[in-house]
Amino acid sequence: MIQFSINKNIFLQALSITKRAISTKNAIPILSTVKITVTSEGITLTGSNGQISIEHFISIQDENAGLLISSPGSILLEAGFFINVVSSMPDLVLDFNEIEQKQIVLTSGKSEITLKGKEAEQYPRLQEVPTSKPLVLETKVLKQTINETAFAASTQESRPILTGVHFVLTENKNLKTVATDSHRMSQRKLVLDTSGDDFNVVIPSRSLREFTAVFTDDIETVEVFFSNNQILFRSEHISFYTRLLEGTYPDTDRLIPTEFKTTAIFDTANLRHSMERARLLSNATQNGTVKLEIANNVVSAHVNSPEVGRVNEELDTVEVSGEDLVISFNPTYLIEALKATTSEQVKISFISSVRPFTLIPNNEGEDFIQLVTPVRTN
Amino acid sequence: MIQFSINKNIFLQALSITKRAISTKNAIPILSTVKITVTSEGITLTGSNGQISIEHFISIQDENAGLLISSPGSILLEAGFFINVVSSMPDLVLDFNEIEQKQIVLTSGKSEITLKGKEAEQYPRLQEVPTSKPLVLETKVLKQTINETAFAASTQESRPILTGVHFVLTENKNLKTVATDSHRMSQRKLVLDTSGDDFNVVIPSRSLREFTAVFTDDIETVEVFFSNNQILFRSEHISFYTRLLEGTYPDTDRLIPTEFKTTAIFDTANLRHSMERARLLSNATQNGTVKLEIANNVVSAHVNSPEVGRVNEELDTVEVSGEDLVISFNPTYLIEALKATTSEQVKISFISSVRPFTLIPNNEGEDFIQLVTPVRTN
Repeated sequence: MIQFSINKNIFLQALSITKRAISTKNAIPILSTVKITVTSEGITLTGSNGQISIEHFISIQDENAGLLISSPGSILLEAGFFINVVSSMPDLVLDFNEIEQKQIVLTSGKSEITLKGKEAEQYPRLQEVPTSKPLVLETKVLKQTINETAFAASTQESRPILTGVHFVLTENKNLKTVATDSHRMSQRKLVLDTSGDDFNVVIPSRSLREFTAVFTDDIETVEVFFSNNQILFRSEHISFYTRLLEGTYPDTDRLIPTEFKTTAIFDTANLRHSMERARLLSNATQNGTVKLEIANNVVSAHVNSPEVGRVNEELDTVEVSGEDLVISFNPTYLIEALKATTSEQVKISFISSVRPFTLIPNNEGEDFIQLVTPVRTN
Repeated sequence: MIQFSINKNIFLQALSITKRAISTKNAIPILSTVKITVTSEGITLTGSNGQISIEHFISIQDENAGLLISSPGSILLEAGFFINVVSSMPDLVLDFNEIEQKQIVLTSGKSEITLKGKEAEQYPRLQEVPTSKPLVLETKVLKQTINETAFAASTQESRPILTGVHFVLTENKNLKTVATDSHRMSQRKLVLDTSGDDFNVVIPSRSLREFTAVFTDDIETVEVFFSNNQILFRSEHISFYTRLLEGTYPDTDRLIPTEFKTTAIFDTANLRHSMERARLLSNATQNGTVKLEIANNVVSAHVNSPEVGRVNEELDTVEVSGEDLVISFNPTYLIEALKATTSEQVKISFISSVRPFTLIPNNEGEDFIQLVTPVRTN
């Protein structure tokens, strides 16, 4: 029967990370528990929602954890409730003792709380991912790529493949990451410092958002492993599994235009604020669009809601060139594209009022390119 | 037609305060608007939900406001939407111009937003409260009194009078404030520095909570005025009206016991944390109670939930005296009582397991006294 003592705060941290994979509203009730597995090496916490699984290991070698293991074993405890109880304990040292009938006695200071657990055998087995030949990625680079693309994935289940982000490695080091919901698209290309076997996978954008929350910036690199329907991101203490989406991702390369009629360079923050103002009014219109007018190298934004009012605004520009143009689109797509851009200036290039326009960081080439599709308003 | 210019931030601050009285889900649609009244003296913003009304005045004398009035008038604008629009404007200076058909043109920097307003005559007339002979109160004192009592008022409409806080002034300077939901009670007595006409009113606790949010700590005093069914709190710029509750407040004085069998003094924070741990488990029991046991001057807390587990905890005490006792109660009432207490130590006094116990700040007398009713568990 399990018996160990541990630093409460380190234990809580590990539990909170593991809990990110645990949903309280799962169709499989056992998945609302956290699995605690104690061996002579340390403690492994496991959480899963069937899509994402997280294993967090606390080693007896970790001095901050103050982990003293007297007896190994494994047990399941209701995750949310267990975390609240641990968090409420008065002392920095927490004693964890299993007693008869799968009960756990937690002791800390003068407080003693007994909780009912469940047989560890009831927990589903996680699918294994072979861990040979890792691809090593910088966490920072991977997280930036996710931040630049995952928001553009679809949230609608009507075309499930579009709820994912397409990751493609070619020539062992050329990584292309792309997401689209068919109204807008975001693509980041980069050349890896390391190299690995080529791959072509679609990762659910929701899993990637959890990944960015779980892998904090102090984790410098992650190892990446694939099986045919799963991907594993692994750091020293954390293993993060997510299922892959099945199906063929649409060919997005052909969507990216290369010749333009009009280009304009904007200050990113200024343009975003203008679009946020426009959106206040466009939300009250029938098609929800803002109209951008480029005439004599002056760019202006217009919204007219018969019920609420109207916006007319001349936009600050750094440079405008090319033909005059009028184009209407959903300002939210442009706002989100601008939010994903860390560059201070952006270059927007247009072909016509019915063709998607592109947005790239100014002066940085086209490794990061976004597309927004206009709305025909008449 | 209205025409003025103003510092955007000062205008936003005043709008946000006025908005506290405005509900978007009001049965009277016109109450979702803010009324803007411009005279040669300044601007008055008015918001109301029918229960609470707030008038906020911005004077042309206020240098920070940078208020320049070219033409007076009054108009109604959709409050939430108008605040979002003002907040989105790019420049620190905002121009407000009324044009034909009750439309407003807001200009700031290069941005121009036109909004549709409504006739000011559509706004209901606020009931007037005669403003002679003010009672002047320190804001800090009034807010503390509210924080100490209002939480104990009922949230159930089954006995409407208990959703209010009873304010009684006797002998021109003795203020008694009391609230109860019939499970617990909180009473603060204080002697005012100033004096006023005696009163006996019941103010909705919800209104008092809004009061504490609206009157910030930089407002040193408030003037208080009464009509037969309203109360007005007034500072230099803000008039805050709330209706009073009709009916007779129950006699609570007779509920307060004066002789006790057992007393215990606790560190306020320690006791609160113990009760929060107990509540984690008591939430999962049928009657939701914690059992407090006093035996040989040792106090311990116990909860036993057949489904989830149990708590046993010896409580830290400063001093215990009197007879042994076992008493069960809802830990939330004690937690909320402790939260309302700024004193580092509290003294709890018991009569028996079926009589309410009292809680007072230790060493501070009984000007602030709280009662919690036990639950009979068998």
